[in-house]
Amino acid sequence: MKRTELKINTKTKKYSVIVGSNILKNFNKICSKKKIIFEKSLIIIDKNVPNLLKKKLINNLKSKKKILYIFNANEKNKNFKSIRTIHQILFKNKFNREDCIISFGGGITGDVAGFASSTFKRGLKFINIPTTLLAQVDSSIGGKTGINNEYGKNQIGSFYQPDLVISDTDLLCSLPYREIICGYAEILKSSLIYNKKSFEYLDKNLKSILNLKSSIIQKAIINSCNLKKKIIIKDEKEENLRKVLNLGHTFAHAYEATLGYSKKLNHGEAVILGIKNAIRYSMQIKLLSKKNYTLINNHLYKIKMKHKFNQIFNVQDLNKILKFMKLDKKNRSDKVNLILIKNFGQIETNYQTNCNNIKKFLYEEFN
Amino acid sequence: MKRTELKINTKTKKYSVIVGSNILKNFNKICSKKKIIFEKSLIIIDKNVPNLLKKKLINNLKSKKKILYIFNANEKNKNFKSIRTIHQILFKNKFNREDCIISFGGGITGDVAGFASSTFKRGLKFINIPTTLLAQVDSSIGGKTGINNEYGKNQIGSFYQPDLVISDTDLLCSLPYREIICGYAEILKSSLIYNKKSFEYLDKNLKSILNLKSSIIQKAIINSCNLKKKIIIKDEKEENLRKVLNLGHTFAHAYEATLGYSKKLNHGEAVILGIKNAIRYSMQIKLLSKKNYTLINNHLYKIKMKHKFNQIFNVQDLNKILKFMKLDKKNRSDKVNLILIKNFGQIETNYQTNCNNIKKFLYEEFN
Repeated sequence: MKRTELKINTKTKKYSVIVGSNILKNFNKICSKKKIIFEKSLIIIDKNVPNLLKKKLINNLKSKKKILYIFNANEKNKNFKSIRTIHQILFKNKFNREDCIISFGGGITGDVAGFASSTFKRGLKFINIPTTLLAQVDSSIGGKTGINNEYGKNQIGSFYQPDLVISDTDLLCSLPYREIICGYAEILKSSLIYNKKSFEYLDKNLKSILNLKSSIIQKAIINSCNLKKKIIIKDEKEENLRKVLNLGHTFAHAYEATLGYSKKLNHGEAVILGIKNAIRYSMQIKLLSKKNYTLINNHLYKIKMKHKFNQIFNVQDLNKILKFMKLDKKNRSDKVNLILIKNFGQIETNYQTNCNNIKKFLYEEFN
Repeated sequence: MKRTELKINTKTKKYSVIVGSNILKNFNKICSKKKIIFEKSLIIIDKNVPNLLKKKLINNLKSKKKILYIFNANEKNKNFKSIRTIHQILFKNKFNREDCIISFGGGITGDVAGFASSTFKRGLKFINIPTTLLAQVDSSIGGKTGINNEYGKNQIGSFYQPDLVISDTDLLCSLPYREIICGYAEILKSSLIYNKKSFEYLDKNLKSILNLKSSIIQKAIINSCNLKKKIIIKDEKEENLRKVLNLGHTFAHAYEATLGYSKKLNHGEAVILGIKNAIRYSMQIKLLSKKNYTLINNHLYKIKMKHKFNQIFNVQDLNKILKFMKLDKKNRSDKVNLILIKNFGQIETNYQTNCNNIKKFLYEEFN
């Protein structure tokens, strides 16, 4: 299995996601084949990407004018100031709509680069080359772009599909274990949404995936992307179906916001805590069977994530967490919309509950 | 002719444009019929809209929570600060994606309200009620949103279709003559793009239109909207066909930018100067016949616009004008892309020329 191509047809754009080992060296060939042609390109590179990888991309990109912008990617810099900086570079270099922004980094870089692309002269070309497992399986697909502000994560943003996504699994080798767990959180989430079989595959191959064993990780990435593809082509703008992808995320986003997006808990870790909460909530209201709850909970245990809810938060944090949960974009009234699980492959997307119930539920984490 | 409905089906949204006399009183009924339901609404009202009209809208809008934001609409306030102010109001009032922004004003208000809608939590509901002739025939249809910056007009923005457009022709009665000319510029442009017959209709009825004679103005608005509809459903994101709508605008945008968007020359007046330039350029390069040039030029003369090019600009301004023309979003390389006219209904959208030629051409305006 050298290279797999997923074709995604949304209402607004048709594009390919190419997943494989050592495919970055064919960057230029892939662009030509896909008829993505541009004279100028701005490459937004996550500061954390190793130099060797940077050079690999730059050497394999043929574009009359290449401009590099090294972006210090973290949740705090995922703000309007960064968008403005990128726009200024584009204006100064006289970019027009036929030119291209290339994102080379994790999900934060992709979200910022995508939002900058979508709003500059109402839309530039946009190629996403995710360098983290999380970005490869999640944020690079689906066209969500955005920035944070004082009201929470991704509160300002747009839906803007890329022209191409290249996920080279060789880029993952330099990632620390915490980053691998991050991406794995989304792979696991996908399997829970998909079916029991895909969950069992993960349960059986957990160790190989976390060790990035080439063929296994590639299969896991493709499965995960495939599910996301199926969902977004049916519901590009998150009107309903797409909400299943938020399993565990209503909790997770609030946790991150409460901690001010600190490195204490990164996104994927928050998602794992969020999934843990979502399955327990689902079991408590008798949506999920005890048996399935135990299966999933044991799997979460095997991931060996260091962070436990009651080590990160204290009782005083609960009000803050709830404040952020109420701001969630999915909410349709004053209640909080939780995404829960009935069974493998069966997600409840419209469970409305009030803050008091959630507070009581989270309080139990301290017992 | 009491009310006409145009249905617009773009790739991203299906929506209606309703044109008629005294239809604002049915605002609530129209929303229900179109199944546009929301609990909270933010009404962004152009400061220039007379109080009587404001009350008319507010009294006819049933929404659990109505928030008013009076916007001092001018090109200088069409900036990011205004977007931020609107977003802050939305956050403070806990708006979510099911809620609605209603724009009640001219094109500037609509562009700002639309851009704010498209970027808040990746998209709110958006209803546009244009109160100027220009906005009714032009900016309210097509989904272009945007703000200005130091690099020019609408340099930052998005494509975002509204959920509904209500064009009540009674709103036009309080407009000053300069504002009527503004809207007329776009009506004229549409006729040139459309066919000779529609131009002849305007030439015959010019006086009645400029005096806002009810049935005639309604017909002129609908014809103009209809043409725009035909074009945008074929080319939502301005890839090629939609460029015909920019006839005269490459010049016009640069004129406005050169004057710092001052009230000396408003958008429609700039478009009339731009059309004047475009037809003369087209004739000089033998694209347009002398006979047709004279027909159109005489018509422009009859509009009795006070502003002449050589009274507004001096020779020293030419470099500045060219600098802005080079920044035009339609340009695909270092050359300037002019939109020219071959005949009634035949537009040349890809005429590339260099700055020197344009400079020489504009210099002739001073002789």
